[in-house]
Amino acid sequence: MEAYLDNAATTRVYPEVAEIVRQTMLEDYGNPSSMHRKGVDAEKYMRTAAETIANILKVKPKEIFFTSGGTESNNWALFGTALANARRGKHIITTEIEHSAVAAPCAALEKMGYTVTKLHTDREGHISLAELEEALTEDTVLVSVMMVNNEIGTIEPVAQIGELIRRKAPNTFFHVDAIQAFGKLRIYPKRMKIDMLSVSGHKIHGPKGSGFLYVDERVKLNPLIYGGGQQNGMRSGTDNVPGAAGLGTAAAKIYATLDENAEHMYALKERLAGGLLDLGNVVLHGPKDLREGAPHILNASIIGVRAEVMLHTLEDRGIYVSSGSACSSHRRAGSATMVATKAERDAAESSIRFSFTELTTEEEIDYTLQVLREVVPQLRRFVRR
Amino acid sequence: MEAYLDNAATTRVYPEVAEIVRQTMLEDYGNPSSMHRKGVDAEKYMRTAAETIANILKVKPKEIFFTSGGTESNNWALFGTALANARRGKHIITTEIEHSAVAAPCAALEKMGYTVTKLHTDREGHISLAELEEALTEDTVLVSVMMVNNEIGTIEPVAQIGELIRRKAPNTFFHVDAIQAFGKLRIYPKRMKIDMLSVSGHKIHGPKGSGFLYVDERVKLNPLIYGGGQQNGMRSGTDNVPGAAGLGTAAAKIYATLDENAEHMYALKERLAGGLLDLGNVVLHGPKDLREGAPHILNASIIGVRAEVMLHTLEDRGIYVSSGSACSSHRRAGSATMVATKAERDAAESSIRFSFTELTTEEEIDYTLQVLREVVPQLRRFVRR
Repeated sequence: MEAYLDNAATTRVYPEVAEIVRQTMLEDYGNPSSMHRKGVDAEKYMRTAAETIANILKVKPKEIFFTSGGTESNNWALFGTALANARRGKHIITTEIEHSAVAAPCAALEKMGYTVTKLHTDREGHISLAELEEALTEDTVLVSVMMVNNEIGTIEPVAQIGELIRRKAPNTFFHVDAIQAFGKLRIYPKRMKIDMLSVSGHKIHGPKGSGFLYVDERVKLNPLIYGGGQQNGMRSGTDNVPGAAGLGTAAAKIYATLDENAEHMYALKERLAGGLLDLGNVVLHGPKDLREGAPHILNASIIGVRAEVMLHTLEDRGIYVSSGSACSSHRRAGSATMVATKAERDAAESSIRFSFTELTTEEEIDYTLQVLREVVPQLRRFVRR
Repeated sequence: MEAYLDNAATTRVYPEVAEIVRQTMLEDYGNPSSMHRKGVDAEKYMRTAAETIANILKVKPKEIFFTSGGTESNNWALFGTALANARRGKHIITTEIEHSAVAAPCAALEKMGYTVTKLHTDREGHISLAELEEALTEDTVLVSVMMVNNEIGTIEPVAQIGELIRRKAPNTFFHVDAIQAFGKLRIYPKRMKIDMLSVSGHKIHGPKGSGFLYVDERVKLNPLIYGGGQQNGMRSGTDNVPGAAGLGTAAAKIYATLDENAEHMYALKERLAGGLLDLGNVVLHGPKDLREGAPHILNASIIGVRAEVMLHTLEDRGIYVSSGSACSSHRRAGSATMVATKAERDAAESSIRFSFTELTTEEEIDYTLQVLREVVPQLRRFVRR
């Protein structure tokens, strides 16, 4: 038996996505920039994908810009806005618990002379609106807050943040890293007063190397990648037709059954959490109310068993999970989220992320719990720390 | 009958490439950053692709960095080197005939305070080594020259350029846009003293959204995209495993028969050129000696027939070609290459690019010529200019 519970790291592509990728690689393989029919045919896939996504977000298709993935989207939003508005101010506000795809560009901007304020979080990972309000200054050009934390699944109050920014600092742009949120939650940038939104394809059964940045028409930002002038001059490079078409197909499919998906995943999350707590001496991270966090992420520490040991023990039984942030697991640095949420050291060291999709089954959860019940007592007895 | 003669714009993916893309989307779909077996399995595809490409170029696998395509590779080389070496100097040398994926970043750098010298070309599109030597100053941090011009197929003397730079300005880095050269010519960066080399996947029957930048170990450059620290911290973002694996597969296949491919394409090019000249009042662009230019590009002006008219007339007969640079055909601006090579106005206005791959057939060429012999006299009679 196999249980792939690392879906926040990446997902298996939907068969429908694989099919449209095949089709655009082998049949409708034209370059959308070409003026002949093969170009026009290829361009239709781009337009359809943009329309599909725009309908889901209730925005305009021309506000959707395809990128090579979530990391590029985040980098573009941060550098693009900071550089285009440098004369107005050089202050950026973000949080302590951002993914490195936001944190690292912020660090690079600091080296370039920008000031970055990192909002603290409570023990559940929520930022404070009061602290944000206090941090906003005349020089603040950008606020960047993730919608769902990739490690513990905390959902930040982006609609309230958007409201606050629009009211207190209407010239400040608001960027949301929605890489773990898109496909799991309903997101309406206009209503939520989000100016830019980053999304990745491979987190929602779309192709790796695909993603988009939603950019409200009012936003002033520079391109990150210059060239042939594709995508209205904002993101050059031959359109990745298979990537965009695959992403659009995945988005349409996942949003068609969003509520059922969420309910299914919350049930799995509760089932797994219950079984984990039954093991004894287990700490759950993120919101105490499991349904207050994202449906697909459960982060738990089986105290006394280091995360790497747990990960490899489970792997031997065909169960795939993540320690720390799956997107940067090779790195040795401690998790900023664990530090920000003031996790105890032994909890941080044993933190394991289980992550689902709507295709994850109850059987996978039960198998995982069965294996845990078998191995945890042994590991706790023999593993020295 | 159909004749796809727009392969310099994009190519149909090889079946073997489609298969490895499918496999890495549906079976080995792990995230190479994950520490478990699914991550390790996925990472093997990345390593194999890097090794394949490194073997072709005779460089080290760790000098290959995967990107989202040629445009990102060019942007990264230019911005990355310019920004990392700004203290040493702010002068860049390039040519008048670069693709916009080099020209546009150069224009952006000029706005940021850099000085850009654009080398002239002769009527065949070759730059002058003497002019380059004169342009090199103490402040020159980077020289960027394309290997094969995307419009007229001229091959620049990159080995001599590399030699000159290493001798006269050993601290100046040398970047080569090889997007139209890779898969058509043998390229050995170490021997040719090329420090950075940009390549795109979809020009060689690989996936769109794939590419790489070769970066010699000695080069000091900043990342363009920051984040989780993938690819040795130089290009963050979840590895596009299908893209890299597909690119590696395409590169291996195309280089396995490179000499035969080139011979086949030169024969097609000569056959097409001969037939075109027989039409009368036709001007060929690029090197007079057809075998001195790239094997896959023939640019010809059928005087008296505007390029768009020709393009759409051929399209109606299932023949796909390009007017101007296919990568930015939507743009109205005149071709910088036509200006630099001092093409007459009527020749520039009727310039059509025919481009092949090794899969292009003699039948496609003969069919194209047959159609041209039929339509050109009519078009010349009726089309007003």
